Amino acid sequence: MRILGIDCGAERTGYGLIESDGRSHRMVVAGCIRTRAKEPLETRLLTIALGLRQVIGSHSPDSAAVEEVFYAQNVKTALKLSHARGVVLLTLAEAGLAVGEYSPLEIKTSVVGYGRAEKQQVQMMVQSLLGLQDEIESEDACDAIAVAICHATRTSTDLRLRAAQ
Amino acid sequence: MRILGIDCGAERTGYGLIESDGRSHRMVVAGCIRTRAKEPLETRLLTIALGLRQVIGSHSPDSAAVEEVFYAQNVKTALKLSHARGVVLLTLAEAGLAVGEYSPLEIKTSVVGYGRAEKQQVQMMVQSLLGLQDEIESEDACDAIAVAICHATRTSTDLRLRAAQ
Repeated sequence: MRILGIDCGAERTGYGLIESDGRSHRMVVAGCIRTRAKEPLETRLLTIALGLRQVIGSHSPDSAAVEEVFYAQNVKTALKLSHARGVVLLTLAEAGLAVGEYSPLEIKTSVVGYGRAEKQQVQMMVQSLLGLQDEIESEDACDAIAVAICHATRTSTDLRLRAAQ
Repeated sequence: MRILGIDCGAERTGYGLIESDGRSHRMVVAGCIRTRAKEPLETRLLTIALGLRQVIGSHSPDSAAVEEVFYAQNVKTALKLSHARGVVLLTLAEAGLAVGEYSPLEIKTSVVGYGRAEKQQVQMMVQSLLGLQDEIESEDACDAIAVAICHATRTSTDLRLRAAQ
């Protein structure tokens, strides 16, 4: 199963595509779509849509996953993020991809086994789960892979539970 | 000048296209793209994008205008609206349209002459400015036209000021 995880943001949208059977995961591609702060928001959204379409077109994922939106820290930031997130969801829907949505707590629990894990712990576990020697360069790409791993694990658990019923 | 005004929303996205010289305005088309609350957000965003593309494709506006996002009342609603707004801005950028953004205060001042005007006063003035006998059926379409009128007036004033310098 090929899962595309996305970490939405108006400035940086991280993406990570993994191949997974729900237990072991392999990284296919990961990166970050960057936009220029000086540009109008609509131009930045276009950059995100075009970048994401290219990733989907080149790597044909089977499904996708994004983080739920939260606004604990800053409402203005959350509103801008939601613009980018809307564009990401649209692009996934246009590609016919089913989208899983997970809270930060679910993602951390799934990857680290602890819902209040630090960012660095998540990064180390992502690296370890994928069997990578080197650190993933972009933090946003790493967060995107964490969402993909969460989706892979959850989907696989759901399938096994259903099969056992 | 053909201006497309849009009133963004995840449930209802109003649109109104006017032909204007900055002083007198004529309505070309107005309506509302409705989405189903039961559907996943990504499907609803797709409905908005497809609907808006159709309006743009059929009526070839020269520019577009939207309301600035505000979150005075409910952050959750503002976050959902921002998803729709992101999709609207993307669709306008894809069509190569320049986008004007105006605050509710600017729109009301432009249409009614008073920034704290009631919704009904805005509707009556929109109807009057367009010389319409009947009420515009959809409230969202009416709000969209108000944004378009604001953009027409502002653009025209800016041009005249520049010419006078």
